[in-house]
Amino acid sequence: MRVTRTEVRRGAYADSIVLMRLQAALAELPGIDDAGVVMGTRANLDILRAGGLEPDEPDAIRGDDLVVVVAAADEERAAAAVGRIDELLKSRGPSSDDEIHARSLRQALRRLPDARWALISTPGRRAARVAREALERGLHVFLYSDNVPLAEEVGLKRAAAAAGRLVLGPDCGTAIIGGVGLGFANRVRRGPVGLVCASGTGLQAIASRVHELGSGVSQGIGTGGRDLHREVGAATALQGLDLLARDPETRVIALASKPPDPTVSAGLLGRAAELGKPVVVHLSGRPSPLPRIGSLHFARSLEETAEIAVRLAGDPQPAGHPGAAGGSTEGDTPRPDGARRYLRGLFAGGTLALEALHGLGPLLSPLVSNLAAPGVEAIRDPTDSRGHTLLDLGADDLTVGRLHPMIDPRLRIERLEREARDPEVAVILLDVVLGQGAEADPAATLGPVVARATADDGPAVVALVLGTDEDPQDRAATVERLTDAGAWVTHSLAEAVARAAALCTRPAAAPGEPVDLEALAPGFAAVNIGLPSFHEDLLSRGVSSVHVDWRPPAGGDERLLAILEKMRS
Amino acid sequence: MRVTRTEVRRGAYADSIVLMRLQAALAELPGIDDAGVVMGTRANLDILRAGGLEPDEPDAIRGDDLVVVVAAADEERAAAAVGRIDELLKSRGPSSDDEIHARSLRQALRRLPDARWALISTPGRRAARVAREALERGLHVFLYSDNVPLAEEVGLKRAAAAAGRLVLGPDCGTAIIGGVGLGFANRVRRGPVGLVCASGTGLQAIASRVHELGSGVSQGIGTGGRDLHREVGAATALQGLDLLARDPETRVIALASKPPDPTVSAGLLGRAAELGKPVVVHLSGRPSPLPRIGSLHFARSLEETAEIAVRLAGDPQPAGHPGAAGGSTEGDTPRPDGARRYLRGLFAGGTLALEALHGLGPLLSPLVSNLAAPGVEAIRDPTDSRGHTLLDLGADDLTVGRLHPMIDPRLRIERLEREARDPEVAVILLDVVLGQGAEADPAATLGPVVARATADDGPAVVALVLGTDEDPQDRAATVERLTDAGAWVTHSLAEAVARAAALCTRPAAAPGEPVDLEALAPGFAAVNIGLPSFHEDLLSRGVSSVHVDWRPPAGGDERLLAILEKMRS
Repeated sequence: MRVTRTEVRRGAYADSIVLMRLQAALAELPGIDDAGVVMGTRANLDILRAGGLEPDEPDAIRGDDLVVVVAAADEERAAAAVGRIDELLKSRGPSSDDEIHARSLRQALRRLPDARWALISTPGRRAARVAREALERGLHVFLYSDNVPLAEEVGLKRAAAAAGRLVLGPDCGTAIIGGVGLGFANRVRRGPVGLVCASGTGLQAIASRVHELGSGVSQGIGTGGRDLHREVGAATALQGLDLLARDPETRVIALASKPPDPTVSAGLLGRAAELGKPVVVHLSGRPSPLPRIGSLHFARSLEETAEIAVRLAGDPQPAGHPGAAGGSTEGDTPRPDGARRYLRGLFAGGTLALEALHGLGPLLSPLVSNLAAPGVEAIRDPTDSRGHTLLDLGADDLTVGRLHPMIDPRLRIERLEREARDPEVAVILLDVVLGQGAEADPAATLGPVVARATADDGPAVVALVLGTDEDPQDRAATVERLTDAGAWVTHSLAEAVARAAALCTRPAAAPGEPVDLEALAPGFAAVNIGLPSFHEDLLSRGVSSVHVDWRPPAGGDERLLAILEKMRS
Repeated sequence: MRVTRTEVRRGAYADSIVLMRLQAALAELPGIDDAGVVMGTRANLDILRAGGLEPDEPDAIRGDDLVVVVAAADEERAAAAVGRIDELLKSRGPSSDDEIHARSLRQALRRLPDARWALISTPGRRAARVAREALERGLHVFLYSDNVPLAEEVGLKRAAAAAGRLVLGPDCGTAIIGGVGLGFANRVRRGPVGLVCASGTGLQAIASRVHELGSGVSQGIGTGGRDLHREVGAATALQGLDLLARDPETRVIALASKPPDPTVSAGLLGRAAELGKPVVVHLSGRPSPLPRIGSLHFARSLEETAEIAVRLAGDPQPAGHPGAAGGSTEGDTPRPDGARRYLRGLFAGGTLALEALHGLGPLLSPLVSNLAAPGVEAIRDPTDSRGHTLLDLGADDLTVGRLHPMIDPRLRIERLEREARDPEVAVILLDVVLGQGAEADPAATLGPVVARATADDGPAVVALVLGTDEDPQDRAATVERLTDAGAWVTHSLAEAVARAAALCTRPAAAPGEPVDLEALAPGFAAVNIGLPSFHEDLLSRGVSSVHVDWRPPAGGDERLLAILEKMRS
């Protein structure tokens, strides 16, 4: 019999990562089926209920209460789990050294008066207020929080601009400032390439590739995903370009975003064109047919953005093939066999998922996704797959009450195991994003799952490992363990997508009888019916041609024509 | 006083090009204000009326009557013009040599029994019937006619496939078969690059560039614009790929289309991937972020399609810069001055217009067009321009009752003169498509207009001259005359668009106060508010950090918080 037990801590605020880690730790205790840990808002209690974790006395719970519900095999184990909450909370919290701890921003600045940056990751509803206080105290702001209202973003950025300060974000996942990664960031060499990116995984992908190619990053300025919206007007991106134009260490600038508002784009690229430094531009999902306009160079992918930037910076590129990690990328082009014919893409990085989707769009059909792209069908239920399905597992509707899959692998592992059991699946495509902030050892959790999935003629697994050899996760070991588990591993999104597509592409057959090659042989003769000029052109090229003086049959009389047609048949 | 005079020839059928040429010739006679020449359908009579050319006794006119209405300064001149109709008709018709003339397809085949191809350009409503007869007689069909119903296209292509025959079209503007151009085609060297294109100007652009790069074209198989629609299922493109795979002269295949139906695309590219020859793929307006999948190579523009194909064919590329024609493409990046700030693009080639539009989309705003592209506003009235406007002048609604601008320059010249008078126009962007079928001497008509437009600090004119040095028009002289007239001339679409964009791009300014570079200097200190892990990451990178134990103010009580905020302000 399954029992649940509820524990409520009055007014005990904890942020979402702490909550999620506590929840994961409780769920791993012996005899525990499931655990939910939330702040006690109505919405959160509904999420608990939806997961079968009905809290006791819900009407007594307030929004600032910490609520724990565990489901266990028996009362004893439930009680044991609840009894370990404090210990688990403590082990996950920061050290309590008073020197590096404060109860307020004011107190923090008394302890660290020369602080120049504030990193803010409080819940979105409150984050703008905290950011405004930081600006008022003269700090630059890295604003990781999402769900900040657009109007507040506009106000914050206006205040920052007036004071000559930066607000990176809201919803800024990644930055690299003075050689130090903020938020989710890869460890990269310092060098001549400066980045301005409205996408966190976009910045990570470009920075990692720049490092991989032997060059380095001067600064990585994340702007937050909405900076290029009409209302915000690229306020942070323009500041970023201006800074990088003046920064003597930056020789080349890379500017990446999802397709921006057209007016904002026009002004921003106009500014980028006059900085006096080359700028590599990548608008994800909308590559330009022009390779270059003056000092603007257009790239079609995150990888190519890095490659062009490094080339323009004049840094030597290594002789090796940076994409190749585990698999061989030349020669063998695998083909789908019989029943196994579909792709399932399970992505943690949203921008990577979008780029993969745009690459697969013309190749696989029907292609289904929770991201929008031309030729791609919108998924109805993202917990279900059909045909070729590519998912951004970090999307809001898949992460309600859960950690982002870049931090917590459980959602993706469940999904991977389910897809591997589908006998129609030919290939499972994964991204594994390394770097600070990301899961500590993704190969340890993914490896055994991949090994089980690929065993006994299971589907292929193609893994894009994104990160650098300096990242905390030990990239080489990650690649080796995934390869040993049976995955085909690469550091190149293009190669991962190409490999996965080749495993599921199914050719159409030419219709009917083969056409004899004689059809195309030179020295043919022709009959021309219609425009006399075509006849004259044929004669002028030495082609024998007879021109038919075509007139509408039956003098153009449709009724008479219909009768004639009938008589003929 | 203006007088009109109507002449009706009962049952005298003539095709649209003959009608238009007669109309143009009449309009040039002395004292003639305007002339209309149409077949007498209700729709055509309405067009005459809309142009102020009211026919006499319209109720007596039938659909197969040839109707001429002239407007002149006086009765005498009107009568003189009408009196010259027969002479003008005769001078424009084909020679009446009986050996190369026939009254029916059957008769034509008696005169030329080894004919292998039929070129069909009769009006669309009847063209399918003619094409079916040609197929029944064992011919391959080049079907130039447009307005053939989709169901008839499906039926024709099914019949062709069953018989091992080709139907190129309907609405196939261009093909190159056995070294001979059909329809609108450029004269190009024979060589190793085989083309399969669902766009006429697309095929022209790729073929011309292949020639320009020193290589050549084995075959150019036009499929018609709808071949990659779902109903048609790429029937002709699949036959084309199959033929080129077997053709020993073809070493590399280029496959170009507007974005096709996703299912059709998937099957077609699947087939393309297994031909055993490299295939360069270009889906106009939707370039892939992947450079390559196995033997499929993805290009982002028509020019790049040719460049990749020539490289893969292993043909040497000339040392010169194929884009440069008249203008210098390096160094000077012109800037818009004061009032002159807008682009006006006046295109004859639809696929060229679309590619230019996709290139300009992120750079100019608001950008207005009668073609659809992301970030581009639909034009309300294509006879009017506002802001940055780019027009496909060959679009149906602009060519009702007129010849296509690739044949008849008058519509574009009128428009060019009007745009040049607009004091806000900075640059006029034109394509000049050469080759058989196109206007005989475009520089003769465009040159003086360009000279007048650019004189006296008028707008810049940027001209893309598309064609080869073997085309009938004398490309070098065309470039020279346009350059002498003041145009900046190139053979590269990318360069033309880049130049035009640079003349109108207007930069946004960074907002507020400049941020001090100190913001990005290494060795900074930070305050962390929110996720403890960010604080730990900072400490691990040697950054001084104080962590603030953030809690919701007022214990999360929104009412109390509002009161506190009020007291504070």
